[in-house]
Parts: sequence; structure tokens; C-alpha cells
Amino acid sequence: MPSDHAPLRVGIAGLGTVGAAVARILAARGETLSRLAARDIVVNAVSARDRKRDRGIDLTGVAWFEDPVELARSRDIDVLVELIGGDEGPARAAVEAAIASGKAVVTANKALLAKHGNELALKAETANLPLAFEAAVAGGIPIIKTLREALSGNEITRIQGILNGTCNYILSRMETEKLGFDEVLADAQRLGYAEADPTFDVGGFDTAHKLSILTSLAFGTRIDAEAIHVEGIAQITPLDLAMADELGFRIKLLGVAVRTADGVEQRVHPTMVAKGAAIAEVMGVTNAVTIDADAVREITLVGPGAGGEATASAVIADITDIARGRLTPPFGLSVRELAEPRRAPMQHHEGGYYVRLSVYDHPGAAAAIATRFAEQKISLESILQKGRARTATALPSVNGAESAVPVVLITYATTEAAIRRALDAVSADGHIAEPPQVIRIERD
Amino acid sequence: MPSDHAPLRVGIAGLGTVGAAVARILAARGETLSRLAARDIVVNAVSARDRKRDRGIDLTGVAWFEDPVELARSRDIDVLVELIGGDEGPARAAVEAAIASGKAVVTANKALLAKHGNELALKAETANLPLAFEAAVAGGIPIIKTLREALSGNEITRIQGILNGTCNYILSRMETEKLGFDEVLADAQRLGYAEADPTFDVGGFDTAHKLSILTSLAFGTRIDAEAIHVEGIAQITPLDLAMADELGFRIKLLGVAVRTADGVEQRVHPTMVAKGAAIAEVMGVTNAVTIDADAVREITLVGPGAGGEATASAVIADITDIARGRLTPPFGLSVRELAEPRRAPMQHHEGGYYVRLSVYDHPGAAAAIATRFAEQKISLESILQKGRARTATALPSVNGAESAVPVVLITYATTEAAIRRALDAVSADGHIAEPPQVIRIERD
Repeated sequence: MPSDHAPLRVGIAGLGTVGAAVARILAARGETLSRLAARDIVVNAVSARDRKRDRGIDLTGVAWFEDPVELARSRDIDVLVELIGGDEGPARAAVEAAIASGKAVVTANKALLAKHGNELALKAETANLPLAFEAAVAGGIPIIKTLREALSGNEITRIQGILNGTCNYILSRMETEKLGFDEVLADAQRLGYAEADPTFDVGGFDTAHKLSILTSLAFGTRIDAEAIHVEGIAQITPLDLAMADELGFRIKLLGVAVRTADGVEQRVHPTMVAKGAAIAEVMGVTNAVTIDADAVREITLVGPGAGGEATASAVIADITDIARGRLTPPFGLSVRELAEPRRAPMQHHEGGYYVRLSVYDHPGAAAAIATRFAEQKISLESILQKGRARTATALPSVNGAESAVPVVLITYATTEAAIRRALDAVSADGHIAEPPQVIRIERD
Repeated sequence: MPSDHAPLRVGIAGLGTVGAAVARILAARGETLSRLAARDIVVNAVSARDRKRDRGIDLTGVAWFEDPVELARSRDIDVLVELIGGDEGPARAAVEAAIASGKAVVTANKALLAKHGNELALKAETANLPLAFEAAVAGGIPIIKTLREALSGNEITRIQGILNGTCNYILSRMETEKLGFDEVLADAQRLGYAEADPTFDVGGFDTAHKLSILTSLAFGTRIDAEAIHVEGIAQITPLDLAMADELGFRIKLLGVAVRTADGVEQRVHPTMVAKGAAIAEVMGVTNAVTIDADAVREITLVGPGAGGEATASAVIADITDIARGRLTPPFGLSVRELAEPRRAPMQHHEGGYYVRLSVYDHPGAAAAIATRFAEQKISLESILQKGRARTATALPSVNGAESAVPVVLITYATTEAAIRRALDAVSADGHIAEPPQVIRIERD
């Protein structure tokens, strides 16, 4: 690294919408940034696949590399900005090459961090180099800096976030327009809010990658993405959203990490959140993160979770910190001091549950179901049964002559294990026409 | 300042709820903080008036000073934490003495910064010492760090915040319980949410102090608290809150700073905000700040604006930054580079307006009023007139035989000057029974 007053030379690997926005903003705000950073910040080199594409940026005098690893090793840059994506391949190789050759790294790559964050942080720390990743979680929301620097006086007890704009967009539209998942997904794909292969987003995996990073920062533990219990949103129906509404809830795909007596519980799943809670009011592609901690009680950050400019904003904040010499270990604590997380098993999860059953409409069914819940010592806060007429269109089609009606149970706090045992018994009893819908409730 | 690995020695001036919480948390989280800061952080000395009071903290081995200035000059501290309050007197003297004798300063004192922030920042910068004040605005919300470090890639266009918990508590209760200002204020005083002399809070002055700091950070300008247009909440009535509700708004006391063609507009006043906007959903003593900027579009931070523990959280974040050596000029830019703000005159303010008139109930009044608005080229978005029966209890008492009915006008964007001219004409016409109620609308 050059002296503090020499220009900071940036190399950008990957010139998609984010990379092009980073280059454009660094040029447009050059003068202000050099005053904020007390030194100039210049894009010296880039790498991308297609050299001819018009990205709306002037790359005159900027070195071009075909190979991001060569860019990473170049003597003409001080910081590698990795915007290639993917948890292996060129992204990983470029980040490792950058650290090995003494460069700071800024990355938006949550998949890479979820899988290799511990070892990359250790390498960066050993080489006394910054590894920064504000853009990897919740786009333009400064959640990484907040967790890493702003809450040192707090014992964090829970962090929960809407971390995937695609899922929140789909659930918001399903709720407000009373549409099915497939229909909204197809529309989101047409509008560019969802990928052609949406599994990564709607299956909850993108949220899980981001959550693994937040968990590490919040609890001072090593990244443990494999421990995350992951469920997506594909099974959520308009009926669930209508029932949630009636019960005072919204359904959000949340990433949640909680410190429990058993260890750290990390989970991604559709979640019932009370209307009025800050996170429940977040609609569309917007992201939000709520932190519960002993001193601040609760703080919530809301903002754009994706988009070229918003993500570039986070990248540039990291670059400015590096230019200023504001150094912090990647995960707040030295990697050697991060604890090995104790994994709280999902079966021990405690909380309320929304259970929707499709119950054959004959005498005794309700009593039999209630008995099964009572056997597991599960107390019911409310029971909602809809007549056939009222919810006819939303009713599941049932084979055979018998018809079924939806019955929704809201439980008081119980355990995942108890719910599963109760539902296994209910299924075995033969009173329900299809597998139960189970959605966890997250209380304030 | 000692070497980076020697303990950071903290002196706390003022041991009220915040000071005691700082001391308690620094002791309780000592081990974690020393790992986050890469050095120990110890409270070495304190000053407060009453030595005998039980504050629930162990001050064994901690030096006690009667005089905060002596504490500030002590050779046994590296950082002065100023929690005395007030824009002159011992607080100012202690901060100046600390800087003059080579100490870093952490303060929660918005009044001091609003009045003397420019000169104190210059002194600190000249001496190459940190001056940190996360706790001065919005308590536990990391808004200072966000503005100073996280948005360097953005041109900020507007910042607006609920910055005074007392006012938001009063407006929230007036709205939800349909009570008058005086009644809720008295209750807030009983509950400890409002001071015995509430002027400073309900008059908008506390919000103005905080806004002046945010404006400086957001726009890179010198603090200019005197330029702020300030209105309080005492004149808001349950009728206004009911009308707002009907029109899809909530009324919040906001501090707003906007970059306009005329310069920077800074204002504190009751504001109509659309329900559904993040800031509109913030109820009770909670604070919130929304930042509009070109790259991130909009981010909102929500959290506790006051309280010993939450404010201490912000103080400790600053102390940790100082211990880590994360240095930034107090207002992001060097004081010498802060621009002298061009003051946008309030008469040039452009926006929508809610105008509630108490109109004598006779023919021609409505037409005459509409004409006065039309003469000023003010377009009306909606007009709401309530019959006497429906709003009888909320009606103003009118002297004489004539009775008056409330008429609410919502205007499209116009200027403050045009509104004032129109209302002067309406008053002169003699159609209204009491001075008009005017509340500005802040659009998304």
C-alpha cells in the first residue's frame, strides 16, 4: 500500500450494473471523495468479459485485463473491487490473488463470504489488509458498518432481516393483489425482479448467505452458513396471506439469528410478523434489518437491497474507509477471536406457530386435532375456521368425495419438536387432506 | 495520546442516567470491548456534583473531580466524555479544556454543537484530536456514522427526521387517543417523558439543534443553527390529527434539511407525512431519520432517541472508534473545507400545504376563499368541509352569533410566500373566525 496521501488506485473486476455504477460514481464524485478520503481515489484498471459493450462510462486510460486474477496481481492497483460473483472460480481466485499480492479487497459477494469468509478474513488479517463487504448484505443499507462499529456497547440478542428483494416483492404483490406465487413470479421475471432460474432467491439460499455474514458480526462467531435452516416461499398461498391479514400479521421471508441457551439459532423461512412492527411495513423490493440488543433495545434499518447505484454506494463507502485508513477486522473481532458457533438445533426452536390444516369436514375432526396438540402441551391462542362458501376459490382441491375446509391454528410459544410430533399424529389420524402448512411467528 | 496498545483511559463528566450507563456498560463489557478495540478501555476518572448518590456503579479506584474542567485537564485520562449538557458553562469549558490539553472528546451535547460546533471541530482538528458525538442526535441510532462514513458515494438531497421523542410521544397519543395537547403533555410530564418546562422540546428547539448537526454532515456545510425555521407542536389540535387521518396523513414534528436551487433549507415544524412512509409509521418516543440521496434513493433508520442505555450505546461506539484509531474529521470533511451554507429563505419554500380555516357559515365565504387562493396561483388538491354536527366537540368557540365550520384545503406544490399572501387576504376579507392553521406537507 502506498503512503496515505498518494492516490488510492482501484481495480474493478466485473463491469455489470454495479461495477459500471462504481466507476461512474467514482469519476463523477471524484473531487468530493478526495476531500472525504483526504486523498484521490482513481479507477486504474478493470476486468470484464466483453470489452466492446457500452456501459456508459469513460474507460480512457484505464488498463483492461481479460483475467481478473491478473488484475488482482497488477502492480498498478491498491484495492481490488470484486463484483464477479459466485463462491468459487474467478471470484475466489481473484480475491485470493489480491490478498496474496498485498491488495485490499472490497467485495459484494455474499456467496463467497458464506462459503470461504473465515479463511479469506484470516488471510486478509494475517497480511494486515482490509477485506470489506458492505455491499454483500442489504445493498445500500449500512448494516455491516452498523454491526461492526456502531453497537460495541451492546450484547445483541437477535437479528432479523428482509434480505432478498425478489422474495419481498413477490410476497408483497401476492398479498396486495391476492395473486398466486407462480403468477407473481412470472411477472417478476418479466419485469427483471427475478432471475430466469429463481431457485436461489425464492428458495431462501441468497438470504441464508447474507444471514451467515450478519450472524458472524452480531454474535462474534465464525461464519457457519451450513448450520442455517432454510425454507423458501414457493409454498405460500394467497389463503395464508389472507389468514395472516385477518390475524394481524404479514408474511415475510426473514433471515433470523437468535442467541439462545442452546447456542446460535440461524434460520431462513417465511415468517409471520405483527403488522405495525417496522419490518412488517416494508413492502416491495426494499430490504430491512432489525437488531435487538440490550442497550439500544431495537433499531431498524430500511433501504434498497439491490440495484446498481445502491450497491455501488456501499462499495464506495468501503473504498472511502480504506482510503481514509479506517481499519477494522472484517468481522469486528480478529478472526482468531471469533468463537466457533454452538449450533442450536432447529428441533429446539421455541416460538409461536401458524398451522393451516386442510381438514375433512366431518364430525370429530376438530376435537381429534385439538387433542393431538394438547398431548404435546401446545396451547392454542386462536383457531380460525372458514366455511366452504367464503373461501371457495382458495380451497385446495381434494380428491375423492369428501371436501375439506381450512382450519388455522395459532399457537402460543412451543417447540419445533412438539409441533412436528403433533402434526405427525394429526396426519396419521387421517383427518387432513394435504400436508399441513407451518409458518413460524416472530414476536417483537 | 498513548500508544495504540496501552489502555484507553476515559474520564466521564456528568454521572446522570447516561453517564452511569456508560460506566456500567464499559465495566460489564470490558473484555469484549478490549477485543473489539484491540486495547483495554477503562474509566479512570469522573466528575459529578453529588458524590454520595447511589448510581448503581462501582467507582472504586476511580478518581473523583468536583470540577469537570479539572477532570478534562487531568493527566490520567485520554478521552473526555462530556455528558453535562448546556451550550455554555461547565460543558463548554470542559470540552475546550480537554482539547487544549490533548484529549479526545466524546459528547452527547447537541446544544453545544449547534452553537459552537464549528469552532470546537476546528480546535479538535487543529490538534489532530477526535471530537465525536454519535449520542448527540437520535440516541442509539447510528445516524452520525451513517452520514459521515457510509454515504460518501451519494449526493444527499434531503434529510428528515423525528428527532425528539417527547414530541412524537405527544402527537402519537393525541392521534390514537384523540386527546388535546395540554392533556397529553401533562400526562407525559407525569410519566417522565416531558420536562417540567417542556418549551425546549415541544417548541422544536431540541429538534433544531439536532437538525443543524445532521445538515452539516449531509451537505458538507458549516453548522448554521440560526438559519433554522422553527415551529413547535403546541398549536396542533385533535381536529388536525383527525383531518390528517382522513386525508391519508400523519402529523409528525420533523426536522427537515433540503438542498434547493436557492441553497440549504432547514426547518423544524409539524409536518403532514403520507401514511405508509417509513417515517410516518414511527410512533411513541421512537426516533427515525430518512435520507434521500442519488445512489441509495432512500434509507431510513429507526430506533430509540433517548434513554440512558441507548444513548450510552452511542457514546461507547464513539469511544471504541477512538480506541481503534478510526479517525474521521468531526463533520466528515475538514472544517476548512466545509462550505458556508447558502440559506434558502423560508418564503421560497416550495411544497404542498394543509390549511385549516374556521370559516363563518354564510353564503359566498367558500367562493371568496377559493378566489384568494386562485389569485396566488395556488392549485387545490382537495377541499374537506365538515358539517357542524359531526365535528361539534372539536369546533372552535366563536364569539358572537355567527358560527364557523372547519374547512381544510390541501394544496398542490406552491410557495410559502404565496400561501402567506393568500391567507393574509382571506383574513382581511373577514370570512374566518380564528387564525388559519397551516401545516406543511412533506412528499416522498
